[in-house]
Amino acid sequence: MSIVHKFNAKEQNFFWLGVQPQPLEEEGVRTVTKHVLIGENEGAPHFIMRYFQVEPQGHTRLERHPQEHEALILQGKGEVQIGEETIAVEPFDAVFISGNELHQFRNTSQVPLGFICIIPKQLN
Amino acid sequence: MSIVHKFNAKEQNFFWLGVQPQPLEEEGVRTVTKHVLIGENEGAPHFIMRYFQVEPQGHTRLERHPQEHEALILQGKGEVQIGEETIAVEPFDAVFISGNELHQFRNTSQVPLGFICIIPKQLN
Repeated sequence: MSIVHKFNAKEQNFFWLGVQPQPLEEEGVRTVTKHVLIGENEGAPHFIMRYFQVEPQGHTRLERHPQEHEALILQGKGEVQIGEETIAVEPFDAVFISGNELHQFRNTSQVPLGFICIIPKQLN
Repeated sequence: MSIVHKFNAKEQNFFWLGVQPQPLEEEGVRTVTKHVLIGENEGAPHFIMRYFQVEPQGHTRLERHPQEHEALILQGKGEVQIGEETIAVEPFDAVFISGNELHQFRNTSQVPLGFICIIPKQLN
């Protein structure tokens, strides 16, 4: 089913109408909230668009898995570790992380770091 | 190969380092430039992230095809037609267009309309 989720920010806290934020309470993750913008609820058949908001000093899990990521930074400043390399990122930088690469997103600023991250459907 | 394409805007003209813009000279398309942010060059295995910039009064082709689109508006104001419905869109609205739905993006403003649009790899 086609759908538009209207953006509905409260300053730096990003929300979308019809999308329920999910705080990630997982080992190795610090102050990250996930919003599934286009996924199972919308009937996405092949890949899932998620928005992640990482609070100051927060980070995603340092992890490695077979699925690739395609990400685009929307707000804030941070860094992404890919393998042994760490790269500073800021809005609208495009990040491709190949499958099986070790990776982590980290907020290095005093404001939220927000990015969308698309992943294949099979294991999201 | 993992990669970060740094964003490099010249005001409302969006560019990314290492990404060559491609003006779309196709029937039914008016003043649209495509930037493949994550695709074949980057080794994307399953889906392709493109940025489209539509100039004032421009539009994508009104078309229908089996592949779905997952889009996120980055700049400007416009509207998206999905089937018989037309919905106003602005930055960070998330748009899912199911496969085989008739659709078109149109710029209704005086500034560029820019959005990313992800499509499965097989036919991009």
